[in-house]
Amino acid sequence: MKHADSLALLTDLYQLTMAQSYWQSGKSETATFSLFIRSYPPNRGFFVSAGLEDVLDYLQEFSFDRPAIDYLHSTRLFAADFLDSLKGLRFTGEVWAIPEGRLFFKDEPIVEITAPVIEAQIVETFVINQINLQALIATKAARCVHAAAGRGVVDFSLRRTHGIDAGMKVARSSYLAGFSGTSNVAAGQRYGIPIVGTMAHSFITSFEREIDSFRSFVRSFPDNSTLLIDTYDTLAGARKAVEVAREMAARGQRLRGVRIDSGELASLAKEVRRIFDEAGFRDVKIIGSGGLDEYDLAALAEAGAPYDSYGVGTRMGVSADAPWFDMAYKLVEYNGRPVLKLSTGKVSSPGKKQIFRFADGRRRPLRDVIALRHEELSGAEPLLQKVLEEGKRAAPSPSLKDIRETFLDEFSRLDEAIKSIQDPANYPVELSPRLQRLKQEIEKQVAETQNGRA
Amino acid sequence: MKHADSLALLTDLYQLTMAQSYWQSGKSETATFSLFIRSYPPNRGFFVSAGLEDVLDYLQEFSFDRPAIDYLHSTRLFAADFLDSLKGLRFTGEVWAIPEGRLFFKDEPIVEITAPVIEAQIVETFVINQINLQALIATKAARCVHAAAGRGVVDFSLRRTHGIDAGMKVARSSYLAGFSGTSNVAAGQRYGIPIVGTMAHSFITSFEREIDSFRSFVRSFPDNSTLLIDTYDTLAGARKAVEVAREMAARGQRLRGVRIDSGELASLAKEVRRIFDEAGFRDVKIIGSGGLDEYDLAALAEAGAPYDSYGVGTRMGVSADAPWFDMAYKLVEYNGRPVLKLSTGKVSSPGKKQIFRFADGRRRPLRDVIALRHEELSGAEPLLQKVLEEGKRAAPSPSLKDIRETFLDEFSRLDEAIKSIQDPANYPVELSPRLQRLKQEIEKQVAETQNGRA
Repeated sequence: MKHADSLALLTDLYQLTMAQSYWQSGKSETATFSLFIRSYPPNRGFFVSAGLEDVLDYLQEFSFDRPAIDYLHSTRLFAADFLDSLKGLRFTGEVWAIPEGRLFFKDEPIVEITAPVIEAQIVETFVINQINLQALIATKAARCVHAAAGRGVVDFSLRRTHGIDAGMKVARSSYLAGFSGTSNVAAGQRYGIPIVGTMAHSFITSFEREIDSFRSFVRSFPDNSTLLIDTYDTLAGARKAVEVAREMAARGQRLRGVRIDSGELASLAKEVRRIFDEAGFRDVKIIGSGGLDEYDLAALAEAGAPYDSYGVGTRMGVSADAPWFDMAYKLVEYNGRPVLKLSTGKVSSPGKKQIFRFADGRRRPLRDVIALRHEELSGAEPLLQKVLEEGKRAAPSPSLKDIRETFLDEFSRLDEAIKSIQDPANYPVELSPRLQRLKQEIEKQVAETQNGRA
Repeated sequence: MKHADSLALLTDLYQLTMAQSYWQSGKSETATFSLFIRSYPPNRGFFVSAGLEDVLDYLQEFSFDRPAIDYLHSTRLFAADFLDSLKGLRFTGEVWAIPEGRLFFKDEPIVEITAPVIEAQIVETFVINQINLQALIATKAARCVHAAAGRGVVDFSLRRTHGIDAGMKVARSSYLAGFSGTSNVAAGQRYGIPIVGTMAHSFITSFEREIDSFRSFVRSFPDNSTLLIDTYDTLAGARKAVEVAREMAARGQRLRGVRIDSGELASLAKEVRRIFDEAGFRDVKIIGSGGLDEYDLAALAEAGAPYDSYGVGTRMGVSADAPWFDMAYKLVEYNGRPVLKLSTGKVSSPGKKQIFRFADGRRRPLRDVIALRHEELSGAEPLLQKVLEEGKRAAPSPSLKDIRETFLDEFSRLDEAIKSIQDPANYPVELSPRLQRLKQEIEKQVAETQNGRA
């Protein structure tokens, strides 16, 4: 799934027209852009960082290939000497970022890019595209893991993710946030995520009798069969699965589980559990699926539905109740001068930053302070790390498994009220006194410089 | 943006386990699967077909490469002889489909795939993934075009689409549905879509004075500058843009437009229009943007806001109020036998189908009839066309421009009540008497065969 074409054109046209204008005005100063989320979508009280790995790959490989330059030339928008300058353009800057799998909160910089302004500007679109999607899905998936209250959750979303790239990134981001596997085989291949699956209704309807489809499937997968029992009538399906489990037992095999994909999931699971228990198959697992999200998982846990695990698809894979973040990539420093914008409702904070996380003796996160980059706050963990320097990775990336463990550890320590999937409490995030002062100064300066001259 | 790895693994694991079970049971009969949308999301009364082009490319190129087979082997789930059989597997079937850019409705088959069951099954995931996304976005974009009431609409969504593939497909699907361009430069390169752009707030804040940023930009793009005027104070920004427009006029140049991206868009546009009109710049265009969707566009049209065009981003690019369709790919015929499933709330219609569209003398669509494939209904247009035969395209694809024109023509003839962006009227879709009879027969048969044996 590597892309053969140059990813450099995967940007908004204005990034390139602004670049030409910078270039023609000889503006090649260093700029710092800060990526952050301005507000919580409904029912969100935390975010999970994800997507950095793709951003670092992209920045390291950034370049315009010949067809890209030819295409830009064909648009007649650009000057020939500017296009010549793009041929040699590489990303030479520095990136500070919150590592993948860490909790973060509203207004906190996730990524800060410092580079010659043209470089830092052109990469904006791709950087937002990847971090927005992956943090969005990791956050949604973490909510599902939390709501499932200890039962396993797997990703079944590939058919309804928004395209191919989303299918891959959803599998990775949900695994990172604690899912136990994915149905996406390509994601298994690329990321080493455990792949899981059962059977589809079509397999069953291709046989004249439901039980023959079950028999055929367990012959092929005697160690690893989960039978889908809701095609015609769930309880009748469960009884047929019992019959097949008995046949398997007689051959020294064991039916692994059954899946229920429609109907009243809570009551059906209880009846199906009873059917299997009464037949002596207490170890046959029950998997629930069918349009589930964290709200359903919480309701099923509340109802005591005896599911062993869940397949979660569409609503997680598109983050259905909040399909985007209000994520911004803002210029915060230009040529050493802190800057901000004052657009209605969108005031940003100036300067390069660091986030300090204060925790208690049991490593439970208590509050964060957003400070200027060079500040040092004792007794707190600085979250932003230097991950790219002069366009090259500052250190090897952690493995996906390690990122997942780091996440699950920190998540387990976060206050339950902040993890709540409805009306979560607010995690405290403050600006350091020095950042507050700087912000007030610059706001005042900007208002004088701009509006005084209108 | 071609994918180097095999797309064949971009499927759910159960497609491959079912395939092994089919293969081991010697089931190689021909199956027909039908792709359709089961229900309208809120406020939807029509759908726009899109995504077929990618499906046909995928089916024509379908194959498992060596790394894919090696990966499947490494999972220890599959039999060696089954994996051997995958090496030579190609898609050899037939596809009937509604061409891209046509209106369609709930329950209507968009694509019907007839092939040996293993082939038809493995491709399910990719087929749904692409058609779901592209029809979703084309439908959302058509709603925006309708709501904009004649003003141009362009795609600004790339930064918040769900990944790279979505960014490309959103640009294409929205153009297909009547958008006039995209900010996505790679989509311009790949699809020949007009690319558009203005400038960002960061460009302005990188200068100490707003007006200097305007001057710099128009020097670079004297024929094609749209100045962003809301960075600090929109009306002050408009007056600075007037100053720059005067300087340009003195040089024989013309400021093309200004963009407003925040604040009270309706009232700001009226004041900005007045500022430019009073200064004698009646031809300077005003572009609106900032979190817009079809509901906002309708409100702005209603308020008489004097925008000349709109940039529409996130909410269109993720179809925010309905980020997925309830799309299903159901087995409808197996080895010549019509089939269906009876799962709660998900009863499907059996058999290969055709859709017949009845129109009036002015080609206004009046009602559709879903019939069996071999039926002939006189005076109606059959919508499904044979697009793939023995795994090869049956005819060259129409150009994206032609698809767009076909769409805009049919859309202009659709009843306003059905196009309404809120509480649309229901377009009449019936089943033919023969399809109704078959469905009843099969439901009865299935209930007897399955439940009689429980």
